[in-house]
Amino acid sequence: MADLLAGRTLADIMAERRTLVEAALAQWLPGAEVPPATIHEAMRYSVLAGGKRLRPMLALFGCEAVGGRLDDAMPAAVALELIHTYSLVHDDLPAMDDDDYRRGRPTCHKVYGEAVAILAGDALLTHAFQVLADPAAGGVPAPRRLQIVAEIASAAGSVGMVGGQTMDIQAEGQRLDPKTLLALHAKKTGALLRASLRVGALAGGADEAALAALTRYGERLGLAFQIVDDILDIEGNSAEMGKTAGSDLRKKKATYPAVFGLETARRDAARLLREATEALGLLGEGGAVLAALAEYVGKRRS
Amino acid sequence: MADLLAGRTLADIMAERRTLVEAALAQWLPGAEVPPATIHEAMRYSVLAGGKRLRPMLALFGCEAVGGRLDDAMPAAVALELIHTYSLVHDDLPAMDDDDYRRGRPTCHKVYGEAVAILAGDALLTHAFQVLADPAAGGVPAPRRLQIVAEIASAAGSVGMVGGQTMDIQAEGQRLDPKTLLALHAKKTGALLRASLRVGALAGGADEAALAALTRYGERLGLAFQIVDDILDIEGNSAEMGKTAGSDLRKKKATYPAVFGLETARRDAARLLREATEALGLLGEGGAVLAALAEYVGKRRS
Repeated sequence: MADLLAGRTLADIMAERRTLVEAALAQWLPGAEVPPATIHEAMRYSVLAGGKRLRPMLALFGCEAVGGRLDDAMPAAVALELIHTYSLVHDDLPAMDDDDYRRGRPTCHKVYGEAVAILAGDALLTHAFQVLADPAAGGVPAPRRLQIVAEIASAAGSVGMVGGQTMDIQAEGQRLDPKTLLALHAKKTGALLRASLRVGALAGGADEAALAALTRYGERLGLAFQIVDDILDIEGNSAEMGKTAGSDLRKKKATYPAVFGLETARRDAARLLREATEALGLLGEGGAVLAALAEYVGKRRS
Repeated sequence: MADLLAGRTLADIMAERRTLVEAALAQWLPGAEVPPATIHEAMRYSVLAGGKRLRPMLALFGCEAVGGRLDDAMPAAVALELIHTYSLVHDDLPAMDDDDYRRGRPTCHKVYGEAVAILAGDALLTHAFQVLADPAAGGVPAPRRLQIVAEIASAAGSVGMVGGQTMDIQAEGQRLDPKTLLALHAKKTGALLRASLRVGALAGGADEAALAALTRYGERLGLAFQIVDDILDIEGNSAEMGKTAGSDLRKKKATYPAVFGLETARRDAARLLREATEALGLLGEGGAVLAALAEYVGKRRS
């Protein structure tokens, strides 16, 4: 594996990409001094708080896997992280999950109040589409860019992420059957993770076969990531995760280990990651980084 | 004027366009049976509750004013109304304006609960961009469609509508100076009304001069519309308006009449509508409907 990564480790590559993503996020967000300052401060507070930047990473890796230029996928990478962050800001609201901490610091509404947190989430979601459509974000032909807008909107919307959040709220305290739980995960986290790879690939000029391979990879990695997340919530420690461990249990959230049992959850995650890696076969050396990422997801502790 | 409208009244034309917009909204929104049903019910409940449909109207009129086909502006018209509706759903939340009635019926959170109302607003905003980027929404060339996405995102975002809502919340109970109030209105309602005309014109293939004329018209009509709204809140009756009259006063909202006085407000609205009509000169007969609309805004009672 080390050879295919040109002598570097996945950690090196991720750190390098993360630095680029952080810079792009800081650059694409309006400055904290732009009036009205409060909304821009709240947006920057929520986005520039660290985080794994998994979705941008997937978009950049998806683009590079098909031979695309990193710059071409950067607007999509930024947009995906803005959308992920807005979903966290709204999810943390008292009327939703009512969380006080996120990414190791007080949640947006704890700092700026509920009204500004609602508006900051709205503004981040809106800004994601502005970034995708910005004339300065050139490179990718306009029809492909429209396709990227449509993909991301679909994955983030009522049949995707927001639909999954709705199911999640309605499921609280209930025992879900396996089929419903899988549908919930596919929407709530799966759709945007899958879209991250697809729009990265689209920005990189992927053909149909490569797009299909990355879609398959994305679907499996996405579900495995969620399962590992649920396992870590049971086993992990709060300091490593930047949020309170065991919170799913306390809130009676529907999780994969709760429905299938911890052992099955572990086994299924490993199988999904194997299948994800197999889907990369078509891409040859282009798939090396994504294969390493699948391995990393299986081993992560936070 | 009646001649320029080809023998029809503005009311006829508006009713005809409104029927088309209602049909397009019902068609573009996911069906109430699409899972998860709750979110789609809430979205449809909020959007298909009537309303003036002013923003779609402006987009369609803007398109027709430059000789464009109505169909080309319809996706933008739908997107604008989805965004306007999401802003009302979020604005009505307990953490924001805490309103129980909207468009003559219980607000979204009163019917579906706060969590679903937050999510329904998010989904409507997201869906607006899906409509704009949908491959089935053809007609307009991709680069223009991207420009429309960027215009709408900018007008709806943190330097536009959401920025204005932030200022509005921060201004509650405070006495605003005239300059700040104008900035608040320009963002909160002005930006999206202005964008409605611009994106309609862009969809219709407007040249720079026509776009500039419609921008000027839109800015003036937008502010006049807001001033008239504020006057009606003081003078109007609740039944005609579908919401509670005097609510701005009770909430100590910063309004144009409160800052400038009722007489100045009336005079400024009339002047702005005159200027709006003058800006249409360049468009010749194409501007007739918009001129009639300016007249209508000056006379509206609800």
